[in-house]
Amino acid sequence: MRGVGFEVMLEDSRTKARLGRLVTAHGVVETPVFMDVGTLGTVKALGPRDLSELGTQVVLGNTYHLLLRPGPEVIAAAGGLHRFMGWNGPILTDSGGFQVFSLAKMRRITEDGCRFNSHIDGHEFFLGPKESMAMQRVIGSDIAMVFDECLPYPCDRERAEKSVEQTLRWAKRSKDEPHAEGQQVFGIVQGGVYDDLRRHCAEELVDIGFDGYAIGGVSVGEPEECMYKAVEASVPFLPVDRPRYVMGLGVMHQMAECVARGVDMFDCVIPTRIARHGTAITRHGNIAIKAAKWAFDQSPVEEGCECPCCRGFSRSYIRHLLNCGEILGLRLLTVHNVYALNRFMAEMRAAIADGSFHEWKEKIRKDTTRNEQLCDAM
Amino acid sequence: MRGVGFEVMLEDSRTKARLGRLVTAHGVVETPVFMDVGTLGTVKALGPRDLSELGTQVVLGNTYHLLLRPGPEVIAAAGGLHRFMGWNGPILTDSGGFQVFSLAKMRRITEDGCRFNSHIDGHEFFLGPKESMAMQRVIGSDIAMVFDECLPYPCDRERAEKSVEQTLRWAKRSKDEPHAEGQQVFGIVQGGVYDDLRRHCAEELVDIGFDGYAIGGVSVGEPEECMYKAVEASVPFLPVDRPRYVMGLGVMHQMAECVARGVDMFDCVIPTRIARHGTAITRHGNIAIKAAKWAFDQSPVEEGCECPCCRGFSRSYIRHLLNCGEILGLRLLTVHNVYALNRFMAEMRAAIADGSFHEWKEKIRKDTTRNEQLCDAM
Repeated sequence: MRGVGFEVMLEDSRTKARLGRLVTAHGVVETPVFMDVGTLGTVKALGPRDLSELGTQVVLGNTYHLLLRPGPEVIAAAGGLHRFMGWNGPILTDSGGFQVFSLAKMRRITEDGCRFNSHIDGHEFFLGPKESMAMQRVIGSDIAMVFDECLPYPCDRERAEKSVEQTLRWAKRSKDEPHAEGQQVFGIVQGGVYDDLRRHCAEELVDIGFDGYAIGGVSVGEPEECMYKAVEASVPFLPVDRPRYVMGLGVMHQMAECVARGVDMFDCVIPTRIARHGTAITRHGNIAIKAAKWAFDQSPVEEGCECPCCRGFSRSYIRHLLNCGEILGLRLLTVHNVYALNRFMAEMRAAIADGSFHEWKEKIRKDTTRNEQLCDAM
Repeated sequence: MRGVGFEVMLEDSRTKARLGRLVTAHGVVETPVFMDVGTLGTVKALGPRDLSELGTQVVLGNTYHLLLRPGPEVIAAAGGLHRFMGWNGPILTDSGGFQVFSLAKMRRITEDGCRFNSHIDGHEFFLGPKESMAMQRVIGSDIAMVFDECLPYPCDRERAEKSVEQTLRWAKRSKDEPHAEGQQVFGIVQGGVYDDLRRHCAEELVDIGFDGYAIGGVSVGEPEECMYKAVEASVPFLPVDRPRYVMGLGVMHQMAECVARGVDMFDCVIPTRIARHGTAITRHGNIAIKAAKWAFDQSPVEEGCECPCCRGFSRSYIRHLLNCGEILGLRLLTVHNVYALNRFMAEMRAAIADGSFHEWKEKIRKDTTRNEQLCDAM
């Protein structure tokens, strides 16, 4: 094993789940892992000490957002994103491709990349494989993602074919660019709902050769079954000794299903975003803490949870804070949601380790289904 | 000395400054002390663990705001504000008088108090000595303030005279109401800029007898000299063995001047409020961290400061967070400002203890004056 890289420690006997160790320039990541999104150099409302306490292993930085603000010069002056934000653990950066195609305005795509206008102030930027890798090099992320085109759902066959070829050419160019010291580079399997395109894309990426492989264009509004189908169409053609990463997914039972299909890594803005809208993630479904029925409730957000929010505060108090627009309310729910997913993944790893993953996954699915119904009825 | 109360430990030989110990039902407060304002049951952006780490001794709760949201029933259900907000240290509550006269709408004053409409939703409330003390009893604050009328500046003699008599009648009624167990009650000296009214008010309050005495109607827009004059007109008529508290004051050199005139306690929303507007309090004047000149600055907010903000983060990073509207930026500057004032007061107490208070105060005044000029020029 090299200084950085991935090692499968244990494979589940009844599913494709596996325990792994992803060694990065800033520490070891135990997989399966959920990564917290820190778009602008902070997981919103949290500092690096919070993240360590809550069990966060990897912070995801958004190349597009960091390119716009504060820009590469400011991050370079600090010596990279780790020092800028004071987080000494692993950082993964996306390539900016997804945001260019979903957030930015007035874009013009060429073979070299994409000219677009900032969604903040309309300022013009150009981002392609060359520029994305340069920005990720400045950021100094431990894992850089190739610049790709993320297909929308639905998407017709012809467009998907053209897009996959573009993504493959950009993947090759991304790999050939210089990278930061110790920086691993992941390819991204696209292909929409077309199994043969997923296979083609995966095989071509493996030919180029990457440190890990993401499955992109998943969780973009398609039915849940399409998501698993895309994973099943991609994983068999990826090397067993490289990590597999489903981008943009953070729902508990969906992550468990993907892990059962051989996936190792996830990220999603949902846990922190819904926290700021007053929603707590629990093993018994999501809870809207602002609801009037919690006004006098002295119990914690989630019974039995050991996070600093649940150990210190009641639903009644957090509801009050949220209803008054108090920053502490947003922060405490963020603390809970981040901890809840980190704890969930730790429990998942323990289940794989002791051979009970299959049963554990079924229990999670049933709990979630039952409790989603309960929540709807509440 | 009773279970709760105040003790002067040491008097400065060259000024009226003194070191004291204010024993409350939730712990001992070393004076002179600056108290952090936690209007709605949170010092904005901070939790109780933060406050302990930053050296905060007392949290101030606002009776008016807590009456409106979450209301007495919710706080009672939690067993008081300490348990509601998870802060086990001393809490002081104001009476709500100041807010009724400055924030609320369509008020009608009677001998029993004030009918007003909530500034949030127009809902009608009544607050007088009876209602204020009942609310403070529910809150369970360690120190309750009498219900008073805070005079504006300027205010003519006739109005001031009438108001002082009203304040005295309300003070008497406030004292006669039942209080929470172990709850101390402070009177409030009003009288505006009229020295004889201040003296009259102080003497009458002392006749009623309180656990401590505030000097109110200070820092309401009057010139700095009027502030000191109001303190000088009141302090000589207050008992030496009771704490003296200037309400609404939090500027470093002004607190030092008041301590030199015999004051022991202060509170102000300014440190936390200006933090949320991007301004850091330093011993070298206030700094607007959003300014472009800090874009690449790798130094901490305040050189030599040991707070978690200054130990972990650069001006460049915090400026970035503030300019992106990131919650962490507001939180980190709040952390710094709260720590800065707590450290300032600790240093002041050390100067009184070692007999150097007079020189220390002169240095503070010079530094502030010089640096305010520097800041203006920056």
